Amino acid sequence: MGEGLARDAANFVPLSPLNFLVRAAAVYPQRTALIHGDLRQTWAQTYERCRQFASALTKLGIKRGDVVAVMAPNIPALYEAHFGVPMAGATLLALNTRLDADTTAYILDHSETKVLLCDREFSDLMSDVLPKLANKIIVIDINDPVYAGAGDALGEIDYEQLLASGDPAFEMLMPEDEWDNISLNYTSGTTGRPKGALYSHRATYLNAMGNMVSAGMRLQSTYLWTLPMFHCNGWCFPWTLAMIAGTNVCLRRVEPKAIFAAIQDHHVEYFCAAPVVLTMLAHAPKEHRFTPDWTVQVMTGGAAPPAALIAAMAELSIEVAHLYGLTETLGPSVICAWHDEWNELSLDEQAKLKSRIGVRKNTMEDAMVVDSHTMAPVPWDGKTIGELVMRGNTVMKGYLKNPEATAQAFHGGWFHSGDLVVVHPDGYFEVKDRLKDIVISGGENISTVEVEGVLYRHPAVLEAAVVAMPHEKWGETPCAFVTLKDGAQASSDDIIKFCREHLAGFKVPHKIVFSTLPKTSTGKIQKFVLREQARELGVN
Amino acid sequence: MGEGLARDAANFVPLSPLNFLVRAAAVYPQRTALIHGDLRQTWAQTYERCRQFASALTKLGIKRGDVVAVMAPNIPALYEAHFGVPMAGATLLALNTRLDADTTAYILDHSETKVLLCDREFSDLMSDVLPKLANKIIVIDINDPVYAGAGDALGEIDYEQLLASGDPAFEMLMPEDEWDNISLNYTSGTTGRPKGALYSHRATYLNAMGNMVSAGMRLQSTYLWTLPMFHCNGWCFPWTLAMIAGTNVCLRRVEPKAIFAAIQDHHVEYFCAAPVVLTMLAHAPKEHRFTPDWTVQVMTGGAAPPAALIAAMAELSIEVAHLYGLTETLGPSVICAWHDEWNELSLDEQAKLKSRIGVRKNTMEDAMVVDSHTMAPVPWDGKTIGELVMRGNTVMKGYLKNPEATAQAFHGGWFHSGDLVVVHPDGYFEVKDRLKDIVISGGENISTVEVEGVLYRHPAVLEAAVVAMPHEKWGETPCAFVTLKDGAQASSDDIIKFCREHLAGFKVPHKIVFSTLPKTSTGKIQKFVLREQARELGVN
Repeated sequence: MGEGLARDAANFVPLSPLNFLVRAAAVYPQRTALIHGDLRQTWAQTYERCRQFASALTKLGIKRGDVVAVMAPNIPALYEAHFGVPMAGATLLALNTRLDADTTAYILDHSETKVLLCDREFSDLMSDVLPKLANKIIVIDINDPVYAGAGDALGEIDYEQLLASGDPAFEMLMPEDEWDNISLNYTSGTTGRPKGALYSHRATYLNAMGNMVSAGMRLQSTYLWTLPMFHCNGWCFPWTLAMIAGTNVCLRRVEPKAIFAAIQDHHVEYFCAAPVVLTMLAHAPKEHRFTPDWTVQVMTGGAAPPAALIAAMAELSIEVAHLYGLTETLGPSVICAWHDEWNELSLDEQAKLKSRIGVRKNTMEDAMVVDSHTMAPVPWDGKTIGELVMRGNTVMKGYLKNPEATAQAFHGGWFHSGDLVVVHPDGYFEVKDRLKDIVISGGENISTVEVEGVLYRHPAVLEAAVVAMPHEKWGETPCAFVTLKDGAQASSDDIIKFCREHLAGFKVPHKIVFSTLPKTSTGKIQKFVLREQARELGVN
Repeated sequence: MGEGLARDAANFVPLSPLNFLVRAAAVYPQRTALIHGDLRQTWAQTYERCRQFASALTKLGIKRGDVVAVMAPNIPALYEAHFGVPMAGATLLALNTRLDADTTAYILDHSETKVLLCDREFSDLMSDVLPKLANKIIVIDINDPVYAGAGDALGEIDYEQLLASGDPAFEMLMPEDEWDNISLNYTSGTTGRPKGALYSHRATYLNAMGNMVSAGMRLQSTYLWTLPMFHCNGWCFPWTLAMIAGTNVCLRRVEPKAIFAAIQDHHVEYFCAAPVVLTMLAHAPKEHRFTPDWTVQVMTGGAAPPAALIAAMAELSIEVAHLYGLTETLGPSVICAWHDEWNELSLDEQAKLKSRIGVRKNTMEDAMVVDSHTMAPVPWDGKTIGELVMRGNTVMKGYLKNPEATAQAFHGGWFHSGDLVVVHPDGYFEVKDRLKDIVISGGENISTVEVEGVLYRHPAVLEAAVVAMPHEKWGETPCAFVTLKDGAQASSDDIIKFCREHLAGFKVPHKIVFSTLPKTSTGKIQKFVLREQARELGVN
């Protein structure tokens, strides 16, 4: 029945988030799309600039499928690249600004990047990178007026000159197929070379919409750019903001003072950040803080927000939403979906519920926790640990030029997260550890997350991370790296004693190292660095 | 680049709104999905019942692509059919309950309906229909406990018995392709036989999500079923409600008292209704009214809500949103997207802005107003009338077994609405008339909407509709059908005099007929009935 009703130009269009910008510019042309320093740029201007961008890239010889990379913090040029680059049919590669020259060179060569836009802050790094490249590359400088620091020009022209060479009436290229690439995001590469996860127009359209749906975001609301756009394309929020015709508040550097000032000056309603950023806010000097008379919603992931942190945020009118995702799932794919009736619970009980990553996002088809070998789902008992696997339209297309890794990641028709998770009786997930982060001591699995949770409850502890340390007898034992709060004091013995009171004996760290913790650009603690240190500590 | 990354079970799933129900039942199993009389049914129960429904249909021999029809008001059985029927792979046909036996028989035969569910309220009508059918059909009775009226059983078993025969663990059939049919909706058929518009899983998924996005709907909110589900599948809101895990408040009959009671008893936050329903609310007796201390948002379409009506609604804490759509666009496809700054304007100015249907919905790719012959866009001057055309993923697949009508509707790669529209300088659309509703008098086009707008401003007028009346000299002249407010008085001369003051002479109705206005089940005035009356009046 109904056969012969083929797709027609009238009723079938490839899904693409590019259309969100077209609509925002048509319906809300005078609304502010971007705030950056003194800049107030409307949606109409943004659309025009993105068309110029696409036109200029085309004039440079960029064709469908070519890669255009951007090395920049969260500034308008990087935001515009999320539209301008795919509007030329090209694939956007937002580079992680914290990587070393070798890795960056590897990524640029591996992706066969044709054009690179580079903010002057990173021209020192990039001048080390460029000589290493096997491929020829066109470099465009970004001279951000807000940036007052050093950095030489590397290219022939800068971004504004590039745009000036473009036609504002350029007819943007829509994808020929919604499965076409829109962007390429490299994993952080804690082991081996980073892998390039490819995103499609279809997937980003759905995930951008899913962001709004799952967070119940207000139309025309204001969003602060604390989360780097180079991280999973800012979890697809650049496109979400165009969909809701909201306002993007840019931020070059994630600092408490600047964050509070942005919230106050621009009436920010949403931002995304790792818990470590929230910890910074909670411990910011009083004179930098600002408590709005509206609710700011922060979406946090990468680690469970501790109860004390949620409470500290509440005092600043910041409501914490917990979510979970990976580069391969375009950012958040699991969210701690809230139940209205939970608002009646005590803050501690709420925090306990919120420490769980939750359930699949509306746009993710399915998620479950399984025995990795048999693919049998684990019981919903809050205890049995399995691997979180997912499938749906917001999973990456696969890894660029890496069919083996792609096949492995998609083994059995599910994307394998590599995260160890339990399922609570209500179906909510809780992360116990990364597959490779678990400590196996005398044959017993120790969840480093559990040990860290206890450490965070110690009144003197600001931050903590636990990794495996080699041990002659037990194979491995937990080693804790701890940063104390400003002015707080505690000895190794104090902390080990505290752990003994709250943990089974075999889970208590054998060693406490006091230090600051190495972090990725997205605020995640770099456990592989700590694991190396622990390995030496264990051997010595 | 990235070639060879084929769609995989891990990263590609056909889009389908059925998945919304699976998630609502998994994440919010104990939340109330349906309220009807004394019934409070959770999402877990609803999912289980829908699986039983699908299982039972399968046992009856229903296969992929078969049509299952439902003749019922807005009751849980019809809501469940939006999931249960497609979960068996079948296509849902929600029948218009106001049609005559002949037309209903035509629709059942034309659609080759295999199974019909019929609420007892319509068994009288259906007992006239069944003998007329060429095709054999299985009839299932719906015995709604809320219905106390007459009506014999027509089938062997009723809906609850059918469900009891189904397996609650039935594995639902997902579409093999997201282009597969999910439902079939017949146009109201003001001219000739009704046409069957086919909806795909993809289109309804996107439109259901678009409802939430474009209205900025709150997650877990409560929705009242005033708009019939047989009208474009309730504008796809049955699926939206599952997506947001909201609560559906059912309503057998659209009456002011029942609407106010539902708002009060169940804290309703959203409903959809034609302006005529809002007029009923505005004129309801004081003792039936209820003014909530929260804002209720009503989405209205089919005619522009007059300023006085918007003001009357505001006094009842009901905020009016104006939108526009057709059966062929799955319901609303154009919305009067609001600008925050418009809230600063006077109520009259707001009403003027709100009388426009607006701009394309987020999920509709494109919409424009064109010269129907040349397809050239009209100038954005608020004056030049053209035809509204649209294209996008939320346009129907086409008309069932009617390739000519489909080709005509999709002529030039756009869906042709048949509505005459102007574009204001800000790009917002305003409906001037249906192509066939316009009055052509002495070669001048008269917008019946404009004349009606003046009539509505007359203090004694409750409702008005203007159609063409044949005229020897002018070809056509406007004829007005008017209903006066309870207790109000006005003569033909009074009203014609009032029109002269506010309209160009050639637009003034030549005849005023005082009567109640014939309406469709969705509250739209049936102009074709009035046109026939006017034809006789003009000839005599």
